[in-house]
Amino acid sequence: MDIQELRTRNPEHWMRSTAIRALALDAVAQANSGHTGMPIGMADVATVLFSKHLKFDASQPEWHDRDRFILSAGHGSMLLYALLHLTGDPEVTLDQIKAFRQWGSKTAGHPENFLLKGVEMTTGPLGQGLAHSVGFAMAEEMLRARFGEKLVDHHTYVVAGDGCLMEGVSHEALGLAGRYELGRLIVLWDNNDITIDGKVSLSDRTDQPARFAASGWHVQEIDGHDPEAIDAAIAAAKTDPRPSMIACKTHIALGHAAQDTSKGHGALTNAEQNTAAKEAWGWTTGPFEVPAEIKSWWEEIGSRGAADREAWEQRLSEQSAARQTEFARTMAGDTPKKLSATIKALKKQVSETTPKVATRKASEMALEVINPIMPETAGGSADLTGSNNTLTGDMGKFDTDNRKGRYVYWGIREHGMSSAMNGMALHGGIRPYGGTFMAFTDYARPAMRLAALQHVPTVFVMTHDSIGLGEDGPTHQPIEHLAISRATPNTLVFRPADAVETAEAWEIALTQSATPSVISLTRQNLKTVRTEHKNANLVEKGAYVLADAEGKRQVILMATGSEVEIAMAARDALQAEGIGTRVVSMPCWELFEAQDEAYRRKVLPAGPVRVAVEAACGMGWDKWLTGERGKRDKGAFIGMTGFGASAPYEVLYEQFGITSAKVAEAAKALL
Amino acid sequence: MDIQELRTRNPEHWMRSTAIRALALDAVAQANSGHTGMPIGMADVATVLFSKHLKFDASQPEWHDRDRFILSAGHGSMLLYALLHLTGDPEVTLDQIKAFRQWGSKTAGHPENFLLKGVEMTTGPLGQGLAHSVGFAMAEEMLRARFGEKLVDHHTYVVAGDGCLMEGVSHEALGLAGRYELGRLIVLWDNNDITIDGKVSLSDRTDQPARFAASGWHVQEIDGHDPEAIDAAIAAAKTDPRPSMIACKTHIALGHAAQDTSKGHGALTNAEQNTAAKEAWGWTTGPFEVPAEIKSWWEEIGSRGAADREAWEQRLSEQSAARQTEFARTMAGDTPKKLSATIKALKKQVSETTPKVATRKASEMALEVINPIMPETAGGSADLTGSNNTLTGDMGKFDTDNRKGRYVYWGIREHGMSSAMNGMALHGGIRPYGGTFMAFTDYARPAMRLAALQHVPTVFVMTHDSIGLGEDGPTHQPIEHLAISRATPNTLVFRPADAVETAEAWEIALTQSATPSVISLTRQNLKTVRTEHKNANLVEKGAYVLADAEGKRQVILMATGSEVEIAMAARDALQAEGIGTRVVSMPCWELFEAQDEAYRRKVLPAGPVRVAVEAACGMGWDKWLTGERGKRDKGAFIGMTGFGASAPYEVLYEQFGITSAKVAEAAKALL
Repeated sequence: MDIQELRTRNPEHWMRSTAIRALALDAVAQANSGHTGMPIGMADVATVLFSKHLKFDASQPEWHDRDRFILSAGHGSMLLYALLHLTGDPEVTLDQIKAFRQWGSKTAGHPENFLLKGVEMTTGPLGQGLAHSVGFAMAEEMLRARFGEKLVDHHTYVVAGDGCLMEGVSHEALGLAGRYELGRLIVLWDNNDITIDGKVSLSDRTDQPARFAASGWHVQEIDGHDPEAIDAAIAAAKTDPRPSMIACKTHIALGHAAQDTSKGHGALTNAEQNTAAKEAWGWTTGPFEVPAEIKSWWEEIGSRGAADREAWEQRLSEQSAARQTEFARTMAGDTPKKLSATIKALKKQVSETTPKVATRKASEMALEVINPIMPETAGGSADLTGSNNTLTGDMGKFDTDNRKGRYVYWGIREHGMSSAMNGMALHGGIRPYGGTFMAFTDYARPAMRLAALQHVPTVFVMTHDSIGLGEDGPTHQPIEHLAISRATPNTLVFRPADAVETAEAWEIALTQSATPSVISLTRQNLKTVRTEHKNANLVEKGAYVLADAEGKRQVILMATGSEVEIAMAARDALQAEGIGTRVVSMPCWELFEAQDEAYRRKVLPAGPVRVAVEAACGMGWDKWLTGERGKRDKGAFIGMTGFGASAPYEVLYEQFGITSAKVAEAAKALL
Repeated sequence: MDIQELRTRNPEHWMRSTAIRALALDAVAQANSGHTGMPIGMADVATVLFSKHLKFDASQPEWHDRDRFILSAGHGSMLLYALLHLTGDPEVTLDQIKAFRQWGSKTAGHPENFLLKGVEMTTGPLGQGLAHSVGFAMAEEMLRARFGEKLVDHHTYVVAGDGCLMEGVSHEALGLAGRYELGRLIVLWDNNDITIDGKVSLSDRTDQPARFAASGWHVQEIDGHDPEAIDAAIAAAKTDPRPSMIACKTHIALGHAAQDTSKGHGALTNAEQNTAAKEAWGWTTGPFEVPAEIKSWWEEIGSRGAADREAWEQRLSEQSAARQTEFARTMAGDTPKKLSATIKALKKQVSETTPKVATRKASEMALEVINPIMPETAGGSADLTGSNNTLTGDMGKFDTDNRKGRYVYWGIREHGMSSAMNGMALHGGIRPYGGTFMAFTDYARPAMRLAALQHVPTVFVMTHDSIGLGEDGPTHQPIEHLAISRATPNTLVFRPADAVETAEAWEIALTQSATPSVISLTRQNLKTVRTEHKNANLVEKGAYVLADAEGKRQVILMATGSEVEIAMAARDALQAEGIGTRVVSMPCWELFEAQDEAYRRKVLPAGPVRVAVEAACGMGWDKWLTGERGKRDKGAFIGMTGFGASAPYEVLYEQFGITSAKVAEAAKALL
């Protein structure tokens, strides 16, 4: 690449874009860590996008009707930080740029949405930005349909690298965007032919444009260093009704000794080479110094959107008061006031009628009363709608001709669904939930972790949550999946025992603002164990005494979900032998841990022997089987020690010894 | 579809293929559970494949040079069981067909490789068969290059459904097969337009032939009920040098009332409709009855391959004795005798020179001595070769022009890599290992679980295994991932503390025949803690006393990996205060659990207070912090309670309080 030619072809553009290059080079060199080449290579694309197309107001990065910019290739974080700094984002000061990748700074190694308002989402695990962007774009469509284009009218831009396009989740994202014609989604592919191990061709020869086209995308191929071509391509992408991919042929680490090599991917820290690069670029100011006229040009870009924002605020103020309130509530993610009363009414009805239903069905019962009063919910399933019980009567199918539809048929795409749900939640204005089988938590894992890390309240509806799934056998029977979700920070894992607890779990999940929930639900029918109506949400405490001991309390049985009724039956057996037995239902460990010690001791007092029963691996249960320090012995766990098997579920429970008889036996052995 | 026309067009073929249909219909109806429609729809394709192309000997389903047949759409398991039964697989008796999906039967809901020799791999989680097949085909290429086509010369056939093609992992599989020109991989796509939720078009419009072509595949589209077209397409696929996809347009539940509907996907149990279907098919025998002439035709197909096998055995017997021995050893997965001595020599050298290296580097040191003596290893990395340290000098790059190459550049495809590695191991003759960052265990999860379930000794090399990764920040820092792998049944999780333990872990991992290993390795340098050479492999015990208390034993510190040196420093501090402190290194919990109680008590005796330190979430540690029943109080855990952060790693350890001072403090607080 002839840098001289680029410098002279459009000198103003060159110097403006090179401000990004220089900041990235300096910040990575100072941190002695990071990725220099990508910001350098994509600086031209970013400069054109931000200056000519992106609708944003740097002073108010959370303005609802901004265009979304997602750096899927998150390792190139300095591209984003440089842009935020140059355009005047108040959080991204020069000191922050200088503190790149240091403890306490907001400019983390990869962009973190919880550190900077100007970061739409956390990226770094490759492909996630692209997959999440599908949810951003769907949310925009849904909200535009609901509130009108005066209030909702924006695009979602994504910068994706070769890694993003190689990851499997990209396929799920492409299919969804193509199927649902998300025309406002525009992906800029940093087509630089380089990965960490070498040239892309070392491991891949996919014809990406053909691949995108096969999924119904509009595709263009351009020189990613030609500002006019970039401008024209983005303009064309905006008018095409299909989602767009622009293959931007770029040079990683352009103008640097590491240009077009995998070395250019990482941290360029050789002072001599860096000096030479700046020289080649014609960049003469010192480290972290941006010439005033270039900085002010960028700041003008950053402030230009204020007019758009003000016009939007004007339009919002012209809406009816009720509509303004509803828009504000929706975008803030506040639950409607009547949610609590609605859940209470359902609980009352259930505890009176004591239906014997699977908790997946109980979940549907909850959703049937929730969805009508929360028009912001968006439901869906990864092709298991009838099994996950995620569809309720009033939702309508989200489709190309029905953007008001609130139910998404995600196809067999657990990962893409989960990522897109996070994207919806991050966009704001949508409360996404989606279902699959609990065992397929495995497919959704990268997105489930990102939900927790990004502080978004996505609800993962995971049905068929044990060997209770029966005949489909071990591939479909979760064993370690409760432990996996419980081990994940900032995640609420609910395993409700009946329809009452299920309703309570849903209420808690929907009132979260910064924590995802996993609701683990049975395939098989369960007795109602909460037969006495209480207004209080008992699941909120995480664990509680469901049935206390009669007579001297000698045993505490702990259980979750489908095993609570087994514990109750074991209690009956023990009580019949005169052994006072308490049953503690533990639908949410995380919430129980959050209670004060006094409550926890009240529920699990020292003294009695403890037996836990859960049709899953025992990892984590030792915490509850051991009392406060010095007070209790180790108890017993009844559950799974290996994979499941294929057979009717009643047989499996019997064969794997997860029965009330075994529970009672274990308790007696401890006494 | 006009059944009458199909019946008359080729009546012999029709009845032969309908034997599959009828068995599937009867078995699912009897089990009242399962998937009827797919075996019915794909019966024609399967009949042509098995009768005209597939090289197999039903009496010896494990013959090494058989063609592999992988039912990626595993829910259609009755297709496979019917084929195995009809062709005379000795394990798949009619009683087994009748016991479909019942406790103790070999005919599980989804095909399980550990139940039936004739099942190449466990399928059910969609896309996995397709992704694993890449490994089967690679293994064939590698072994053919090594042993010659006289001994290795077969194809890999896959039946994949719409779900397989929607899953993200299919993209990774397509890219790999295309890039590496796996011309002997032939995928038969059951293109029936139906998923569980409705028509495929409900959630997808991908032009699959175009998509496969974009990844370099040979693509054909045929009528999946036309035996001549099927035959011709398979023949063409076999001659084309590219991997082949044959889009077989089929009708799910052909001839049944549920034909071409999503109802047809599941269990067809309506007796009247089933009778009507058999009538439409012209199938007049009773349930589970196959007319003798049809059965004997199928048995002839099943036995025809015996000649191929015998010819192959003859060719094998003509090889040199050394070559025969080496072939047998390789295919049996036996490690070479000198492995043990080689590892011992490395250990001795390391404990004498006490290098301060990262365990990822230590892993490379181990591989440098292992790979030359184990030509059956195949290494690789998901585009992190230099970081995972998985490449050794002698391997060579596996490529289109170098099938002898043993190192696979997998690209940014953690999931595809892991699935393909399982496929290699299942094929036999290859010991695969592959690397990525530990946090990206998330991407590989479905394959890692399948490794455990299928009993294959895949080795997952997971580097950058804690906040010790540093500046890349929380997306890249594993927290819950040790717990995730430890919670998974039949998985060995190694977290070695230094180069000696790393060598020992490798030795154990490579001698497994039925258990995968996760080797968790640091980015950061660690001191050698095993400074006294011992011939015995101490990691084999799972945990052992690394340094005992001087004086009265008051404290036991437990640690793994990078935290062992922290525990050792804490011990120094405590001993300096006169507090006798033992340090237990616990590189593999699973192996420690497998020891007898006497050994476990010897290592972790009752009495002293216990503190565990691990730079990860604490899930699972309570088990070790609590002694045998009635003997011990709860101890303390020093580790992570939430996600990590972006900063130099030394700062992170300090800020998150994972230091020797904190460990010593916690011990003293317990005393």
